[in-house]
Amino acid sequence: MDIQTIKLKKTILEDNNKDADLLRSQLEDAGTYYVNVMSSPGSGKTTTLISTIRQLQNPDSGAVPLRVGVMEADIDSDVDAQTIARETGVPSVQLHTGGMCHLDAEMSRQGLKGIGYKDLDLVFLENVGNLVCPAEFDTGAHMKAVILSVPEGDDKPLKYPLMFEEADVVLVSKIDAMEAFDFDPERFRENLAGCNPDAPVFFLSGATGEGVPEWAAWLEQNVRDRSGK
Amino acid sequence: MDIQTIKLKKTILEDNNKDADLLRSQLEDAGTYYVNVMSSPGSGKTTTLISTIRQLQNPDSGAVPLRVGVMEADIDSDVDAQTIARETGVPSVQLHTGGMCHLDAEMSRQGLKGIGYKDLDLVFLENVGNLVCPAEFDTGAHMKAVILSVPEGDDKPLKYPLMFEEADVVLVSKIDAMEAFDFDPERFRENLAGCNPDAPVFFLSGATGEGVPEWAAWLEQNVRDRSGK
Repeated sequence: MDIQTIKLKKTILEDNNKDADLLRSQLEDAGTYYVNVMSSPGSGKTTTLISTIRQLQNPDSGAVPLRVGVMEADIDSDVDAQTIARETGVPSVQLHTGGMCHLDAEMSRQGLKGIGYKDLDLVFLENVGNLVCPAEFDTGAHMKAVILSVPEGDDKPLKYPLMFEEADVVLVSKIDAMEAFDFDPERFRENLAGCNPDAPVFFLSGATGEGVPEWAAWLEQNVRDRSGK
Repeated sequence: MDIQTIKLKKTILEDNNKDADLLRSQLEDAGTYYVNVMSSPGSGKTTTLISTIRQLQNPDSGAVPLRVGVMEADIDSDVDAQTIARETGVPSVQLHTGGMCHLDAEMSRQGLKGIGYKDLDLVFLENVGNLVCPAEFDTGAHMKAVILSVPEGDDKPLKYPLMFEEADVVLVSKIDAMEAFDFDPERFRENLAGCNPDAPVFFLSGATGEGVPEWAAWLEQNVRDRSGK
């Protein structure tokens, strides 16, 4: 499959926060909602996105589906963008960070232009797999979604507090593997409450689909509330 | 349990590689072997270290056990150093990076002095959970061990090539979960061969102990060959 690959240039702007605010308002003018998805490597970002997009393509409400696009950020591979495009058919671009461990607003802008955000209602960024650096940079997104997979353990908010503090929503993925691992949902909620007591938490499995409709409906509502669509 | 916590200072040295070489030779003068353990968050570094240390404490060879110590690097929690000390009884210090996503040679030196490396044959550094940044910095270690857990997926060498390229040895952990996840050991070896065809690979489970004696024996041999102990 032919996937556009964008080699990101290092940002020279000094004030990323200001640029992120500008990008957000540019996206709002176009009616585009931007979601920054962050997690460790291998926590199931791509699988979660695929099951989420499929749900958004067939909303329970019967409404006209949102037009969705995905930007896949990676150090230098192309596998995820190809997988997303093949499995969902939505526009997808690959962003190469050239070794950098995060994306900022200007790098987001390069990708959003490449994917043609003006024709989309919702764009996901699958950020570089990393629980440290991406938390430090505002990408201009309207929502930061942090995914934690069950095999990683329920103590991660204690160890990567900034990431969980920054989250607008937390998705606990791979819940089908709950039996095999010592992951206690209640202990997780307590650990999360220490840095972020207000973030909604959705438990889901991209493999079985459990929990995906609830999360997708909540996300869709946020997008429609913001854009008035 | 009373665990020493060291708040690391940011390094001001310009040439980390040179400093890393200096640290390595200082460690060799003391007969101390230094292993930098890197992985994603939640891949089982601590559990793998505990099972490795227990095996080293009771070597199959019947030799005098190596004197082992562990430095646990974290953004700002103390849980791992306490766990290591409680479970194995070996000297353990907690290193706080203050938000930084990696350790370099000077930061290692602060920790090694704190743990009293001159009285130890082998010191493990459990680096910050991250497959990107830690790969870029030489900590002065003699060996870089990269752990990848089965739930993360066999494609990770494609997505984090520098980390796997830098590895002197790769440990595939949580193999007891192999049934529940789509992880193909042969596909993993092929993906790894693309960036690092020579690294030995050990498959193991800290939970069941499978594969741990083989890895521990190989490590012990490397330590004894280097230090002549």
